[in-house]
Amino acid sequence: MNLIHGLFVYVEAIDFDFKIKILDPDADAPCKFIAHEFVNGSLKDYETVLAFGEDCDTVTIEIESVNIDALEELERRGKKIYPQPSVLRLIQDKRIQKQFYKDNNLPTADFVLTENQSDLENYKDFLPAVHKLGKEGYDGKGVQVIRTADEKELAVIVARNVDGEVKTFPVVEMVFHPEANLVEYLFAPAEISEEITNKSKEIAEKTAEAFGIIGLLAVEMFLTKDGEILINEVAPRPHNSGHHTIRANDVSQFEQHLRAILNLPLGETHAHSKAAMVNLLGEEGYSGEAIYEGMNECIAQGGVHPFLYGKRFTKPFRKMGHVTIVEQDFEKLKEKVIFVKRKLKVIA
Amino acid sequence: MNLIHGLFVYVEAIDFDFKIKILDPDADAPCKFIAHEFVNGSLKDYETVLAFGEDCDTVTIEIESVNIDALEELERRGKKIYPQPSVLRLIQDKRIQKQFYKDNNLPTADFVLTENQSDLENYKDFLPAVHKLGKEGYDGKGVQVIRTADEKELAVIVARNVDGEVKTFPVVEMVFHPEANLVEYLFAPAEISEEITNKSKEIAEKTAEAFGIIGLLAVEMFLTKDGEILINEVAPRPHNSGHHTIRANDVSQFEQHLRAILNLPLGETHAHSKAAMVNLLGEEGYSGEAIYEGMNECIAQGGVHPFLYGKRFTKPFRKMGHVTIVEQDFEKLKEKVIFVKRKLKVIA
Repeated sequence: MNLIHGLFVYVEAIDFDFKIKILDPDADAPCKFIAHEFVNGSLKDYETVLAFGEDCDTVTIEIESVNIDALEELERRGKKIYPQPSVLRLIQDKRIQKQFYKDNNLPTADFVLTENQSDLENYKDFLPAVHKLGKEGYDGKGVQVIRTADEKELAVIVARNVDGEVKTFPVVEMVFHPEANLVEYLFAPAEISEEITNKSKEIAEKTAEAFGIIGLLAVEMFLTKDGEILINEVAPRPHNSGHHTIRANDVSQFEQHLRAILNLPLGETHAHSKAAMVNLLGEEGYSGEAIYEGMNECIAQGGVHPFLYGKRFTKPFRKMGHVTIVEQDFEKLKEKVIFVKRKLKVIA
Repeated sequence: MNLIHGLFVYVEAIDFDFKIKILDPDADAPCKFIAHEFVNGSLKDYETVLAFGEDCDTVTIEIESVNIDALEELERRGKKIYPQPSVLRLIQDKRIQKQFYKDNNLPTADFVLTENQSDLENYKDFLPAVHKLGKEGYDGKGVQVIRTADEKELAVIVARNVDGEVKTFPVVEMVFHPEANLVEYLFAPAEISEEITNKSKEIAEKTAEAFGIIGLLAVEMFLTKDGEILINEVAPRPHNSGHHTIRANDVSQFEQHLRAILNLPLGETHAHSKAAMVNLLGEEGYSGEAIYEGMNECIAQGGVHPFLYGKRFTKPFRKMGHVTIVEQDFEKLKEKVIFVKRKLKVIA
């Protein structure tokens, strides 16, 4: 059993005693110290990925920008590659992805391909819209959201195993940082009607089936002010919108991912607690060795769990980790979110 | 930050981004692959432990049979050693431990020191009793329990940090394997009255204060048929009776241990779910490469979480791992415990 990339997935794998090998472009990746075998190399280099996978039974990813040709070659050589390279190819180009939704009658925001700024000017009446690089966008990079005030952004993570068993995590609501264009915080479950909940899950499951994905598919959606649900984009891997599942659900997205790609029975996704996730972004105006100001006050609050990514240096808006907050009561949860956002700062 | 020994504590430490070094006598210890630094060596050898600790800020343990002279020397050299060597010395000799309870008016089963079998014959009217080696007993080894039918065994884990803050986990009930003399399964919370619950917690907290321990203290107690609570013994470390806290409580015993020895605010011990823990013991009549028969049927049940220790070979009653089961409903929990105990077998 081997994985390309992945800290949290690895931690879950320990409990199942899977042997794991990780490829990461960062020689000091946090996962370096906890892999049975760690390879430092480019995920985009054909030879590197091919060589990495040659002694693997199963290969998976935690980031889409991987050399897909190499994964396809490994697949031809009989390796299990999940998510499938064909799905990665579909998703990797956001223009093809958009077309795929149209072809499969999946609701998505209308889109136009713009080549330059003046193009963009012609579509002022076109909001909400997301302006993205056709390729290589990741975690907000290369993505520019043009929002209107009053819509929500929802996400649903669907797991599908090799036998086609499907299980879906509860719907979450994401709130984006206005400048950084990263999820700033998240609430699980989303405060939406049962009707919208079911509709979002149904769309997410249909999307996973349409792709025929094996593994996780995180489906990000817009809920418009008219109650319309539109697919924004998908991620074929454990996702920021599922980090809280480690603390709030029967099975975490990371364990579920492992179960799916190894064709084990999928776990129950039931949430035993309400949860919020606050991304820890480097404070504006600070660059250098990271200091986590206010950490002690925060962890003194019940149910506040920091997950630091082991990055030594901070810079404005760099994602340094996240904090999961679990509570039985939604109002208390919101109070703790506000407390953590006010107290906890990544400075230098 | 460095630890002597410890898989689970380490996993929790990742989230806090602590750098950890582990000493383990087993060259293939499961923790080997997930430590920033792994040293293979004897925990009982003075020079080994001393050398290991010399570049440490803080040293802790997950097993008591460690060279205490070396820990004392490290303490003299200004290292933080938690639990304190003085406490380890008190606890290491069960005869001194027993006397300590007497001296501190802590309720404990009466005891006599027996040197041989014929001695033992003279104390037939002395049940319930536990026959233990004076030293070196661990996990039931060197311990022979002489039980009567109708008492319960309870355990309470207390955490105490450097500032003396104390937090206590809910009381659990342990059921022992008749032959293996290992905890066979555990229920959290114990099905006992509020009065007994409070009394057990109070005794556990008094005991932790009496020792002045920094870290965790697991206090094992007998609840006699007359409702009397007697301390059986204590363990100054994360304990089998707290494994379920990873899945059922706001903070796990492992994270709590780290918080205590690093003098961080202690976490809330609130249980969001009811839990059971089933130890995975090697099936009688099987020795060799371990096979986990029935694993898939078990993990298909919601809330069933295996924790395998990565041991390659099984033998009768060898502790190969454990399974934590979480449920909201106590009857469902019991059904799942029975299911797991019936289905899941470690064979070769």
